[in-house]
Amino acid sequence: MEQIKKFELSKEYLERLQSGIAVQETAYILDSLAGVNVADIAAILDELDTSESIFVLRLVESQLAADILIELYDNTLEKVLQEVKIKEIASWIQLMDSDDGADIISFYSDKEREEIIAEIDDRIKLEQILELLRYEEDTAGGIMAKEFIRANKNWNVVQTINEIRRQAENVDKFYSIYVVNNKQQLLGRVSLKKIILSASETIIENIMEDEVISVPVYMDQEEVAILMRKYDLESVPVVNAKNKLVGRITVDDILDVVQEEAEEDMQAMAGVSADIEESDSVFTISKARLPWLLIGVIGGLMGAKLIGFFEGGLSKYLALASFIPLVAATGGNVGIQASSLIVQSLASKSAFDDTPWQRFLKGFLVALLNGIVLGVFVFLVVAYLYGFEPVFGVTVGVALFCVVLLSSFMGTITPLVLHHFGINPAIASGPFITTTNDLLGLAVYFGVAMLLLNL
Amino acid sequence: MEQIKKFELSKEYLERLQSGIAVQETAYILDSLAGVNVADIAAILDELDTSESIFVLRLVESQLAADILIELYDNTLEKVLQEVKIKEIASWIQLMDSDDGADIISFYSDKEREEIIAEIDDRIKLEQILELLRYEEDTAGGIMAKEFIRANKNWNVVQTINEIRRQAENVDKFYSIYVVNNKQQLLGRVSLKKIILSASETIIENIMEDEVISVPVYMDQEEVAILMRKYDLESVPVVNAKNKLVGRITVDDILDVVQEEAEEDMQAMAGVSADIEESDSVFTISKARLPWLLIGVIGGLMGAKLIGFFEGGLSKYLALASFIPLVAATGGNVGIQASSLIVQSLASKSAFDDTPWQRFLKGFLVALLNGIVLGVFVFLVVAYLYGFEPVFGVTVGVALFCVVLLSSFMGTITPLVLHHFGINPAIASGPFITTTNDLLGLAVYFGVAMLLLNL
Repeated sequence: MEQIKKFELSKEYLERLQSGIAVQETAYILDSLAGVNVADIAAILDELDTSESIFVLRLVESQLAADILIELYDNTLEKVLQEVKIKEIASWIQLMDSDDGADIISFYSDKEREEIIAEIDDRIKLEQILELLRYEEDTAGGIMAKEFIRANKNWNVVQTINEIRRQAENVDKFYSIYVVNNKQQLLGRVSLKKIILSASETIIENIMEDEVISVPVYMDQEEVAILMRKYDLESVPVVNAKNKLVGRITVDDILDVVQEEAEEDMQAMAGVSADIEESDSVFTISKARLPWLLIGVIGGLMGAKLIGFFEGGLSKYLALASFIPLVAATGGNVGIQASSLIVQSLASKSAFDDTPWQRFLKGFLVALLNGIVLGVFVFLVVAYLYGFEPVFGVTVGVALFCVVLLSSFMGTITPLVLHHFGINPAIASGPFITTTNDLLGLAVYFGVAMLLLNL
Repeated sequence: MEQIKKFELSKEYLERLQSGIAVQETAYILDSLAGVNVADIAAILDELDTSESIFVLRLVESQLAADILIELYDNTLEKVLQEVKIKEIASWIQLMDSDDGADIISFYSDKEREEIIAEIDDRIKLEQILELLRYEEDTAGGIMAKEFIRANKNWNVVQTINEIRRQAENVDKFYSIYVVNNKQQLLGRVSLKKIILSASETIIENIMEDEVISVPVYMDQEEVAILMRKYDLESVPVVNAKNKLVGRITVDDILDVVQEEAEEDMQAMAGVSADIEESDSVFTISKARLPWLLIGVIGGLMGAKLIGFFEGGLSKYLALASFIPLVAATGGNVGIQASSLIVQSLASKSAFDDTPWQRFLKGFLVALLNGIVLGVFVFLVVAYLYGFEPVFGVTVGVALFCVVLLSSFMGTITPLVLHHFGINPAIASGPFITTTNDLLGLAVYFGVAMLLLNL
């Protein structure tokens, strides 16, 4: 057994390759890439300049070039597609699975799409791609592939194996054969295992499982992911409104969906507005971060105005200023904790989820408990360790308690409201909740102080 | 085709089921659960009391009970395992795949494990479970299954199909048959497709792919996930130090790993110290949240001390207090953004990652750009819109600029340091970075003010 050629993937090799490309040392390039896994070649191309990547893509066999293209990062791919000819890209698309081909075409403008489509000779592939282009990117229809094995319920095992033989060239991976009636409607599935283990003349309908889980074309990809994870499916058939089998989604596609959604949520939580990678340019990264920072700054400026209103009280009781960061930070932390729990449970919704009222009640009880612990702790430190008068300790403690309750409420309601309006609730766990809670926290803090300290 | 019985999964059904259990209405219970997918039954049991769950588990067929157990939430499972007899659990474990059996046994104490093991009659299953118990939970060895199909390189297709037939009962899903030599060392793999398409007398060695990607038993599960995702693998063989084939990991196991790691990171970012679900008790949720809140509060109390040092300057220039939340919040937001990018790239490491110095340089440039934009913006608002003297506007603007640079540096270095010491870097993106940056931000703010305002 040979391990994959991992050792080649070093910065040294990258530099050697680049100088090889510079002097068009084709024999060396082809030789050094031979046997390297396509995902690794794509990782190498992601590091090269666009013109260098295109040089390599044109050098290798067309099928390999097509396979590499699919594995490239989106921003590398975009640059490559801008530079290669329509004719070239059409010839590569013909060698891809239809879902990958549709993904590539969707990078182009409408006019360019027409030109590419005109260059594709394979009519079946073309029809499949055109059909896939109709679906929204993030739905079952948008991520499904048209390459799958279908058997008529009246066929026997031999006929089915012949169909597999016929299609084996087009279909890379298959786990199940889907069984349809004459109207192409989905009836059930047969595993490859079952086919191997059954006698040649067995009719497919008699060995199929008829309790097959299918998804409609319009289902959101996140829901498909939840379903496949819940029921441990390695692939799932996609049907249209008339239950006609139109495609299938495999678990490796879903792995990408889960990873992407997780990264998206994490970025939303961190207040980064676009999908960025560490390899992006300084300007791209800066641009993706500025909007939320600006919102935070505007929140801070509003906070300054708010504190300005209490300047009279502040001048009488200067120590009030010292505890501003404490109140603001705690409000932010409580808000993020509360919202992340809601975000998490919204992402894995079940039939038995709590109602909004149950959520509020539970959130309230948790906040009550934590608020009391933190409030008493802060009172003790301020009044006894720091040596302020007890009434000031009470003020800070009570303010903190109120802020915990309020922030927890905001952290619970914000993601629910965003979710209701179809916005990714994860953005509620980021700078949004911190900024809102900072302002609310300040208002509560100074309000409590005015009352208890008679300012 | 029957869809899965989704309609049954309602709160009404749950209540009906509970009253059915109360009066031991066994016919109704069995009837209503017939044909319901095992994952859905587990979801129902997660909602029941422990004694009710056990009633259902004892009522249904043993194989179904075993399948349900595997699908339960960890906290439901733990309660159920405490209540059922050792003999019972042993009989269920015998009906599970070895990896699931090992998972269940690992919930018990050493003494109880011995008792369970003594009750397992199936010697092969027992050996497999004992082997799996030796591996760390989060490694390839810990998540692999012992059920897979192995063929000797000298066998022909018919012999291999016979082996498949022999093992089909034990192995639920298989995509590839692994090819070994007489020492059980991994040589390659053959897809089921290839076997179906080859003539009966073909020797396996001649149709196997010898460039098979395998993982060692000790590899971290996250690395296995990255590898399977990168190379689009539906299953990967696990080998020991002598390249002996000892197990295999399928992509649906990895889907769970990816989801779990993402949830873990998100909770770490949100400052929640343990794996909690919305359905956990108020005390459990409160306990998981308090530690980071307390750290935040202690940070806030330290901030109060820090501001106390500058009380003299503050009393001369009261407006300084107003901009404390602005500085603190921006520091926190910048820190989270910077650290989340590092966390993300640490999670998907490649051969071409930037060196720490390149990371710092890039982070510095982004911070420089954002710091200038935000600093100038704040200066303009403070000096012109809010009508403070220009020197005060400059003070707040410059302080903000410095805070952005410093927070970005902290956000970059903290996850790298944590990662270096083997701690999950995602916790650096949460309250930890906010608290640290709050303090640093305050120090910088008042330092700049002292200098520029001559306090």
